[in-house]
Amino acid sequence: MAPYTAPVDDIGFLLERIFNFDGVMQDLRGFEEVNAELAVTVMEEAGKFATGVLEPINRAGDEEGSTLENGVVRTPKGMADAYKTFVEAGWGGLSGDPEFGGQGLPRVLQLLLDEMMASANLSFGLFPGLTRGAAEAIAHHADDTLKQTYLSKMTSGEWTGAMALTEASAGTDLGLLSTRAEPVGDGSYKLKGTKIFISSGDHDFGGNIIHLVLARLPDAPKGVKGISLFLAPKFLVNADGSLGDRNTMSVGSLEHKMGIHAQPTCVMNYDGATAWLVGEAGRGLNAMFTMMNAERLMVGIQGLGIAEAAVQKASDYARQRLQGRSADGAHSPVPIIEHPDVRKMLLTGRSFIEAARALAVWTALQMDTADRHSDEKTRNEAGNLVALLTPVVKASFTDFGFETAVLAQQVFGGHGYIREWGMEQFVRDARITQIYEGTNGVQALDLVSRKLPLENGGVVRGLFETMRQDMQSAAKTDAAKTIAESSLAALKQFEAVTETLLSRQSDAAFTGGAATDYQRMFALVCFGWMWTKMAKEAAGKTNDFERRKTVLADFFSHRMLPQTEALAKAIENGAVSIMALDAELF
Amino acid sequence: MAPYTAPVDDIGFLLERIFNFDGVMQDLRGFEEVNAELAVTVMEEAGKFATGVLEPINRAGDEEGSTLENGVVRTPKGMADAYKTFVEAGWGGLSGDPEFGGQGLPRVLQLLLDEMMASANLSFGLFPGLTRGAAEAIAHHADDTLKQTYLSKMTSGEWTGAMALTEASAGTDLGLLSTRAEPVGDGSYKLKGTKIFISSGDHDFGGNIIHLVLARLPDAPKGVKGISLFLAPKFLVNADGSLGDRNTMSVGSLEHKMGIHAQPTCVMNYDGATAWLVGEAGRGLNAMFTMMNAERLMVGIQGLGIAEAAVQKASDYARQRLQGRSADGAHSPVPIIEHPDVRKMLLTGRSFIEAARALAVWTALQMDTADRHSDEKTRNEAGNLVALLTPVVKASFTDFGFETAVLAQQVFGGHGYIREWGMEQFVRDARITQIYEGTNGVQALDLVSRKLPLENGGVVRGLFETMRQDMQSAAKTDAAKTIAESSLAALKQFEAVTETLLSRQSDAAFTGGAATDYQRMFALVCFGWMWTKMAKEAAGKTNDFERRKTVLADFFSHRMLPQTEALAKAIENGAVSIMALDAELF
Repeated sequence: MAPYTAPVDDIGFLLERIFNFDGVMQDLRGFEEVNAELAVTVMEEAGKFATGVLEPINRAGDEEGSTLENGVVRTPKGMADAYKTFVEAGWGGLSGDPEFGGQGLPRVLQLLLDEMMASANLSFGLFPGLTRGAAEAIAHHADDTLKQTYLSKMTSGEWTGAMALTEASAGTDLGLLSTRAEPVGDGSYKLKGTKIFISSGDHDFGGNIIHLVLARLPDAPKGVKGISLFLAPKFLVNADGSLGDRNTMSVGSLEHKMGIHAQPTCVMNYDGATAWLVGEAGRGLNAMFTMMNAERLMVGIQGLGIAEAAVQKASDYARQRLQGRSADGAHSPVPIIEHPDVRKMLLTGRSFIEAARALAVWTALQMDTADRHSDEKTRNEAGNLVALLTPVVKASFTDFGFETAVLAQQVFGGHGYIREWGMEQFVRDARITQIYEGTNGVQALDLVSRKLPLENGGVVRGLFETMRQDMQSAAKTDAAKTIAESSLAALKQFEAVTETLLSRQSDAAFTGGAATDYQRMFALVCFGWMWTKMAKEAAGKTNDFERRKTVLADFFSHRMLPQTEALAKAIENGAVSIMALDAELF
Repeated sequence: MAPYTAPVDDIGFLLERIFNFDGVMQDLRGFEEVNAELAVTVMEEAGKFATGVLEPINRAGDEEGSTLENGVVRTPKGMADAYKTFVEAGWGGLSGDPEFGGQGLPRVLQLLLDEMMASANLSFGLFPGLTRGAAEAIAHHADDTLKQTYLSKMTSGEWTGAMALTEASAGTDLGLLSTRAEPVGDGSYKLKGTKIFISSGDHDFGGNIIHLVLARLPDAPKGVKGISLFLAPKFLVNADGSLGDRNTMSVGSLEHKMGIHAQPTCVMNYDGATAWLVGEAGRGLNAMFTMMNAERLMVGIQGLGIAEAAVQKASDYARQRLQGRSADGAHSPVPIIEHPDVRKMLLTGRSFIEAARALAVWTALQMDTADRHSDEKTRNEAGNLVALLTPVVKASFTDFGFETAVLAQQVFGGHGYIREWGMEQFVRDARITQIYEGTNGVQALDLVSRKLPLENGGVVRGLFETMRQDMQSAAKTDAAKTIAESSLAALKQFEAVTETLLSRQSDAAFTGGAATDYQRMFALVCFGWMWTKMAKEAAGKTNDFERRKTVLADFFSHRMLPQTEALAKAIENGAVSIMALDAELF
């Protein structure tokens, strides 16, 4: 099959023609010199790395998997070399803080790099992803000594990071965790406990592995208020920065998983591991949540990235696979891409992917704005929009991403079920993105119960106003009229559903029962908004790129957006039947 | 986790109280003595077999997989013994022809046994499933010598069957196949060619393996009219019925698959294998299609069976797993089955499963009626309904079945992604049911382009009339009013969509683009019909069983049936945007 092609043209289109990237950057402290030309050049190089280094080891890595022998984790052939290449090329520090050696480029480029890594090799992408998340938590919450000791090498990627939150009895509900931290008296602590599902918990890349571990101090209250965050390195670090003794932590086992086999997901035993407090005691969850938005956006983009790769492969296969007769009966066999149902499967994926990428870029630009705009009000508004959109991006991109991977597999018929073709790996790998970093059900609950009420509904209403203006403006353009008008209708219905949810915040059954449907509807309306913007820009132009965008916008309008009507009705029908049965009658 | 519980109560409810099983049987030749009491007793025993023998080897079978070494296939530990137990207990011949030693019980019981086997061990269930299909093709099309030689031992299950259709370049489009059959001159043929994806192509159960192979005679025309069906046994059979020489066919390799690892899916090489013609030359596809309805219903029920098992496990887990706070904030941690979104996932599965089982029973009863009713018109009408429903059952049960398995896995959070819990196996195993025995896209095309036009639309319109009468009658009952009225509304919309499709049969893009959405809508309307019938029967009763059915019917009405509106709108929006793009722009 043809190798993965990074969507650099689409990225250029979004940055230059949809989101006024250069203009936005000029207002952001430290990004004044960043422009779309530079961004596209960086993304081209990123694409070469994804295609040339990461994709070639993806299938074999799935077959071989990571292994644990005598306490030593081995990643599949080629992973360690690929990681070395990654670090040496400077990709680890793309959006890293220049104070610690990072390149200081915007988050939006980081997110697009993350998409490419997910397309080419999801298991690999988790190493830098978690390293960045851990570094961000340290940067925001740790004291200067910890920052100086760890951040430079984590920013470059020479040392990696891991997040140790989950325990066997404490998943979504971290308040139940029982790992303990005993103060030693010299400012350090001894960690005792077992954590599960620890991505990148260990590896054979060399360097150090910095674990951020949630644990309880001896006098901590029950529940989430008793949770603190600790830093425990695999190797203690000497005063000169060199690696010292092995810390007393070990890999108990590797998890046997449905997918991401190349990724060593560890059960970690902390047997009195030396650790340091990060941030305030009892504020551990708060410290983790600092970086949660970025992590959740990254997971969302992973769903998108897998979908992009899967649809590329399926389109390629559909152009080459000859089966069946043409619609007019005149030719046989024909490439299956001539069959309407095959086209529909591919278009369903495409019309999600390109709208989702646009929404991801928009959201990441809000994030950069929230970090760096000179105007506080602008920063706050952007930050609120990021908070609102984060659960939507995480859950919907991974749900649609998984569904797209399944459709792309279906295009291959029986061959899609056979491992050698690689399509079933996309499905197995994509599945984790709906679960980790907070299940999609938890994202949806976060959306309806925490994010909608932001500013008494002012944030979501403000977003609707922005959408409406874009849609109304596009509705005047002939080529964008279809998508603009159907999006306006969907928005109107969605606003009504939103007001219902805002007015019933005290009804936990209603909002909880509505959550996942609402989250999906939110995403579809946002996708309609993004297609409207793109169709308007493409309007009136006759070359392939723009004509293609117009058709995809029409397809989305005709065949995908109608889902919103069913979702609205389901939500409005309420949760009485959801809550009626006793547990034992399920 | 709690072991699988066969849905015997539900089966009894359907047979006795919904479908007047005893009355139906009295009119069917050979089934006059069959009644619900007997049926439930048989199903209880079947459930014990599924739970006691098949489920315990399901997980380990997935891990171990079938293997091929020096040309010898080995199934995982316990499979051969389980198969021996299956045959000895007489399950192989449950619905088999008494002339060849079968028990001659109705297809509806066979289908319910198939459901239980799929719940407990899908890989296992394929052995008897394919044996039965092959036997049926032989019974309908082979000459007496072949029947006498093979059918008794295939009916008992002592010998198994396999279907060799697909080749690397001929999947959906069997007209492209190139396996050749050379006449020897003594009435036998030599088969030369390679077939792929051959379920149960070989095993270590002992006995013989009877391959039905599609191939071309030397003078055969191109395309489907040049295809004939041949019987090639693994071992030639001596005149006394004992096993003779090994036939010249061999397993080239085992397919490496996403799931059903315990099932040895073979690449088969026929290297001049001795074979006999089954039926007329050039009528091979016709002979295969004889048994296609039964096979496709079986695959549909496999999707249902996996969903049933997955939801049982997820409900059990949700009752035991403690995470989070109760809706009123008073208790923590609580069983996650208290959380609305978890309940919704389980109810989504349940409301599909129980309506689908009802529809399966109804369809299988039509099949029995088509085979055995004394009145020709009744037989024909029933046969037409089976033809119409078959693609709906195959595609929708496996699509909803897969979606249900994914939801059930989601209930487990991160644990659902870990192999040891078994939930991800359900997802991987269920995935094949959407692909084999004709992909679901092909089923949908069959529905819109071959089945809708039956009797100029008379068959589908007749079904609508039956549905409407049931719904109108139920709408008068308080407890069934909700589901009856929403089903009537959905039916009305569906009739309009159906008439549109009937009037646009010559527009292959429109019907092809509508096919999968139409198929899903068809299923949802049928599920609404079945819930209406069940809710009416349950109305006014206060014990758990009936109260539960009423709640599930309401849930289906409120939260699932609204999907029909989106599907109708998507179909009506047409296929212009589906057909607009050149292949290279995908």
